[in-house]
Amino acid sequence: MQHFIIEHIHLLPDGNRESVKKNCYMEVRDGIITELEAMPVPNDKPYSIPRIEGRGRWVLPGMYNTHMHTPMTLLRGTADDVPLKHWLEKEIWPREAKLNRSMVQAGTDLALAEMIRSGTVAFLDMYHLHMDLVFERTHDSGMKAVLSRGMIGFGDRAAWPAKLNEAVELALSWNEEGQGRIKGMLFPHAPYTCPPEFMTQITAAARENNLMIGTHAAETAGEVQDYKERYGRTPAVHLDELGFYEQQAVLTHAVHVSEEETTLLKKKGAVISHNPMSNAKLGSGTAPVGRFLEAGIPVTLGTDSSASNNNLDMFQEMRMAALLQKGVQMDPGAVRAEDIFRMASFNGAKLLGVDKDGLLQPGGPADFIMLDGDQPHLQPDNRMASHVVYAASGQDVTDVFVDGKRLMKDRELITIDEERVLYNARYWHEKLEQR
Amino acid sequence: MQHFIIEHIHLLPDGNRESVKKNCYMEVRDGIITELEAMPVPNDKPYSIPRIEGRGRWVLPGMYNTHMHTPMTLLRGTADDVPLKHWLEKEIWPREAKLNRSMVQAGTDLALAEMIRSGTVAFLDMYHLHMDLVFERTHDSGMKAVLSRGMIGFGDRAAWPAKLNEAVELALSWNEEGQGRIKGMLFPHAPYTCPPEFMTQITAAARENNLMIGTHAAETAGEVQDYKERYGRTPAVHLDELGFYEQQAVLTHAVHVSEEETTLLKKKGAVISHNPMSNAKLGSGTAPVGRFLEAGIPVTLGTDSSASNNNLDMFQEMRMAALLQKGVQMDPGAVRAEDIFRMASFNGAKLLGVDKDGLLQPGGPADFIMLDGDQPHLQPDNRMASHVVYAASGQDVTDVFVDGKRLMKDRELITIDEERVLYNARYWHEKLEQR
Repeated sequence: MQHFIIEHIHLLPDGNRESVKKNCYMEVRDGIITELEAMPVPNDKPYSIPRIEGRGRWVLPGMYNTHMHTPMTLLRGTADDVPLKHWLEKEIWPREAKLNRSMVQAGTDLALAEMIRSGTVAFLDMYHLHMDLVFERTHDSGMKAVLSRGMIGFGDRAAWPAKLNEAVELALSWNEEGQGRIKGMLFPHAPYTCPPEFMTQITAAARENNLMIGTHAAETAGEVQDYKERYGRTPAVHLDELGFYEQQAVLTHAVHVSEEETTLLKKKGAVISHNPMSNAKLGSGTAPVGRFLEAGIPVTLGTDSSASNNNLDMFQEMRMAALLQKGVQMDPGAVRAEDIFRMASFNGAKLLGVDKDGLLQPGGPADFIMLDGDQPHLQPDNRMASHVVYAASGQDVTDVFVDGKRLMKDRELITIDEERVLYNARYWHEKLEQR
Repeated sequence: MQHFIIEHIHLLPDGNRESVKKNCYMEVRDGIITELEAMPVPNDKPYSIPRIEGRGRWVLPGMYNTHMHTPMTLLRGTADDVPLKHWLEKEIWPREAKLNRSMVQAGTDLALAEMIRSGTVAFLDMYHLHMDLVFERTHDSGMKAVLSRGMIGFGDRAAWPAKLNEAVELALSWNEEGQGRIKGMLFPHAPYTCPPEFMTQITAAARENNLMIGTHAAETAGEVQDYKERYGRTPAVHLDELGFYEQQAVLTHAVHVSEEETTLLKKKGAVISHNPMSNAKLGSGTAPVGRFLEAGIPVTLGTDSSASNNNLDMFQEMRMAALLQKGVQMDPGAVRAEDIFRMASFNGAKLLGVDKDGLLQPGGPADFIMLDGDQPHLQPDNRMASHVVYAASGQDVTDVFVDGKRLMKDRELITIDEERVLYNARYWHEKLEQR
């Protein structure tokens, strides 16, 4: 039976200055937060319950990364400063064509280690190669995730049923594994890579099997323009006709989305995965986050893969999300710290099915992280809520708990052999470059 | 006599992939790099020279932060997400009016600790209160800096001579202290806060005393518009008429600068201090960095104060500088990693008078930093030059050397009592908020 208390912590539940509570204790039992109070541990708590000293530590909900391609972490830094077409066709695809199972595993393990280190507790991922390995390694890491084998419908339509079948089978076979930590979903790569007929088959399969569905949409202006010329409507509108929004749907990127489409997305209950760093780095533009927020669409945050980010640090992603909106709109009030924090925490958690009511609450899952606040860049500390968004980075995280299980303790990974992961990443990356 | 060797290091001298050298050794004697070779330490080197083990460490030039207001670090997180006018008039100025010497010292010490921790070896700073303390604390920290007491010419013109005199005296009295580590300069706050007649007196004093000169210029569109309405020309053009560019001049922010002004600045040999995070956070806009680079103007990087950044991490500043240009211009090639690295290192070092020929070279000053490369977010490591700009953060820095003196050793500050600095920052910030 898991049972412990963390004491003397500062609590930042939701990014609001007013919600910060100093010198709290939290009791955890069997993966659930049972008590959370802004006071010392009461005298009648037996000392037989193990206590973790949390002095100087800030306790936050974990980060929820809603867009990832974990195996691509092996391709970090492969090519920068080049246009998307060159990046994909000359650098990324030729390497992906050579990826073997060991390489996919090395990239996945590297991503899992990096995510836990930087305070991510759950993520949403799609990849098209050896995705079974991503399910397995994620399960073993102790993280939470919603995963999917990506689908692309170029070429032979006779291959569609097998692709769809494989994706559905994989999603169902892992669904709710790890006491519900792992979930499956469907993720057709994009409207422009999955013809309407294929997309219709996929959305039907999502409904039939009650699986969440996601896709890359409106990442670049050119992609939307081409799509309109080909199909006479935008991807977001066409997806509606193809039944995409009938299950819980997530649109990734959504950089070039009009006001009318925003209204449609709100009506259909779609969620956005906003990827500001990747969109900026690839020169795709800046998503209209202010418009999404105004319409009441839940915006979540994703890093995209390390090949276009180039790390998986959700704290840096939060900061960039805020600064890009303010800078581009030339309006310091374009988004507020608490909006950004909500994107990276609660909105993501809700999309991933982790928690629907709120985070860091008695009765809820014991998914949380601890930061070392005793560092110069996080002082003076009575502005904690601001510092978490505008000054912190993932490397301030010292401890990570998922369902009450400690995945990192004082900056040491518990479920992952980090030395081996770093060695394998170097080894298989060199092999890849030699091929 | 200082004499040591660092061995087994990876060397990243200038941000170019091609310049990276693996498994090098570096010999340092009396503040100067005497040898630097991509090979193991030769057999004939006596073991009497102390050796530092550098396995897994990346050695880089230090970071050069060309715009700072160190004492304002005490105001980190005071107010976010509000317009500049509100931020200044309601939040910053009222607090600055209450700052006493202990508070200025607490903010300065906090900034110095944070800068060293995140790999900054030298900086340029201006502040108007108790600036003598900033000179003194910086000197004692072992960092390099070019410092100045800021001048504002609002109100009584009879006060100008005393202000100018105080700024000149302070600059001269500290100039070349610390074996040349500390230098003085003049920094009239801005053209819109220093009337032309006062500015003329200041530029004359700079010439007379051979001091570098700097000012905030063209930070916001509104400021440039108001200035034009008042004086019939833009600040950058008017500064020329007022003799500003006759000494080495640095323009801070330079967000709203036209093509004609760019040509003028190039002709006059002015240097830009680009502050992308502060400009974005305050909603001021994005400087035309591509235009500056095309014109051949040396662009340097600055964080501005933690009150509008909100940290002093030059690695995050590099990344933001790159991503903002790419995102806003929707061009992934808008700037390249090596351009950005050059801004943060060599261009800054040259402006601060540290090194005119290059960094990390035999015969040059032993100013350098070490990063811990054995971390998931910096692997696979044969893309080191990319990772430094696109994946690293200041917290990857483990060691800092200035003139061969170690200011941080394995993440422990040597010249600063960090525990005391953190305590004082909390204490004096609380006092400030109570006043």
